Amino acid sequence: MTEPGGRSPIGVFDSGLGGLTVVRALLHDLPHEDLIYLGDTARVPYGTKSREAIVRFAEEGSSFLLGKGIKLLVLACNTMSATALPELASTMGVPVVGVIDPGVEEAIRVSVGGRIGVIGTSATINSQAYRRSIQTRRPEWLVFSQACPLFVPLVEEGWEESEVAVMTARQYLAPVVAQGIDTLVLGCTHYPLLIPTLRRAVGTALRIVDSATQTSREVRDLLARLALENPGPASPMRCYLTDIPPSFIGVADRFLGRPVTHVERVSLPS
Amino acid sequence: MTEPGGRSPIGVFDSGLGGLTVVRALLHDLPHEDLIYLGDTARVPYGTKSREAIVRFAEEGSSFLLGKGIKLLVLACNTMSATALPELASTMGVPVVGVIDPGVEEAIRVSVGGRIGVIGTSATINSQAYRRSIQTRRPEWLVFSQACPLFVPLVEEGWEESEVAVMTARQYLAPVVAQGIDTLVLGCTHYPLLIPTLRRAVGTALRIVDSATQTSREVRDLLARLALENPGPASPMRCYLTDIPPSFIGVADRFLGRPVTHVERVSLPS
Repeated sequence: MTEPGGRSPIGVFDSGLGGLTVVRALLHDLPHEDLIYLGDTARVPYGTKSREAIVRFAEEGSSFLLGKGIKLLVLACNTMSATALPELASTMGVPVVGVIDPGVEEAIRVSVGGRIGVIGTSATINSQAYRRSIQTRRPEWLVFSQACPLFVPLVEEGWEESEVAVMTARQYLAPVVAQGIDTLVLGCTHYPLLIPTLRRAVGTALRIVDSATQTSREVRDLLARLALENPGPASPMRCYLTDIPPSFIGVADRFLGRPVTHVERVSLPS
Repeated sequence: MTEPGGRSPIGVFDSGLGGLTVVRALLHDLPHEDLIYLGDTARVPYGTKSREAIVRFAEEGSSFLLGKGIKLLVLACNTMSATALPELASTMGVPVVGVIDPGVEEAIRVSVGGRIGVIGTSATINSQAYRRSIQTRRPEWLVFSQACPLFVPLVEEGWEESEVAVMTARQYLAPVVAQGIDTLVLGCTHYPLLIPTLRRAVGTALRIVDSATQTSREVRDLLARLALENPGPASPMRCYLTDIPPSFIGVADRFLGRPVTHVERVSLPS
């Protein structure tokens, strides 16, 4: 296999389609880069599964993308970033960027009081990855976490701005809001679509941080530092999915903000 | 492999843990039978995935159970029964019982007006399997269907009797109730846990049909007809799962009404 270079693509790996919110930011910030997306839609969601299963799935998907000659891997999934990033980073042979540290950097930049709420899937919250990442940088800050397993299905159903979503958000967030948090970190790539609902549930005073923009900036800086930028022009993104469910088109378009073309079904392990 | 006989176990296959509501009925009606349960918890849910993926998963799981020497296979999952039953029934070499026809038989027994509502996963509703099964038996009856993708996550979160669940049920069911249905078929093994909430959402006049009890009676009758009954005594059920998530114990106990013992993790395809 040829050594990856500047003209090689960036691999973006997610458990399903939520990672397309990160792709959206990458397409905006890095228009000259080639992107390859892998969504493990046959096994989605990861967030309710065991750490052991998530690590295995993450290794299988990463190997698939490595086989496509990527120069950098983005784990565009908080669940994988929280549970499998250290293992992958040490074995992949290309730089691996997760979505947790970028979100944490942004939270640290905007928080005025050092009281941070974090919401995500059960696996992400149980991993304590956000708490560790925040408290490594700011040991005196307080972190209040809440798993919100119903948010992903609500978004995938297209109910993200419904009364049901607002009531669900109020129920999940009441305990962390009661702790006087000043900043809320969206620890799941589906959650940016819930921002209007979260505003209705928790008011407008809270700062809400999502990691897509910050992750894309970290990728840009890293490519510059490693002199791995693509002079362009970029080819259209190739999208590999382990299943193409009937709901794919609608959900994908909402996450990406434009149609997904060049879709191919693949099996993992490949 | 020895030919399966009366002392061989019954295999029960579900995409996850919902099929344990069917196991509950089987344990009640067939206390002398040995049961082997397979839950594909690494890839659950099936109901939002493509027909092609569901058929492949169903074949892989059924082969696994066949390898354990089962005498009869219960597809304790509406999504699989709706999409994969005909293929499996013709290739398995042992009788295959799904959950759809038993539910339909029961609906036909209790309906007073021949206007039937059916709720289930997207894959089950899209398959039109309930409509076909009802209209084959009663061509003049009317069937009104509604996919309810949020019901499974609500039950798995333990929110099945919450205000959020009631509001969700009202939203999903309003269109079918407006059609003047007299009977509502629960086309998903998770939904029996929602019956109190469905009653609050649609009132007490509707007849609500779930297929677990009727499926278990069909298995009993079939074993008697084929002279494949187990004289007993039964061994404890063996439970094979493709993933053992942290939430397993709580969810399994609620579905089964007693603790699940003898659990083993396996890989599919095996």
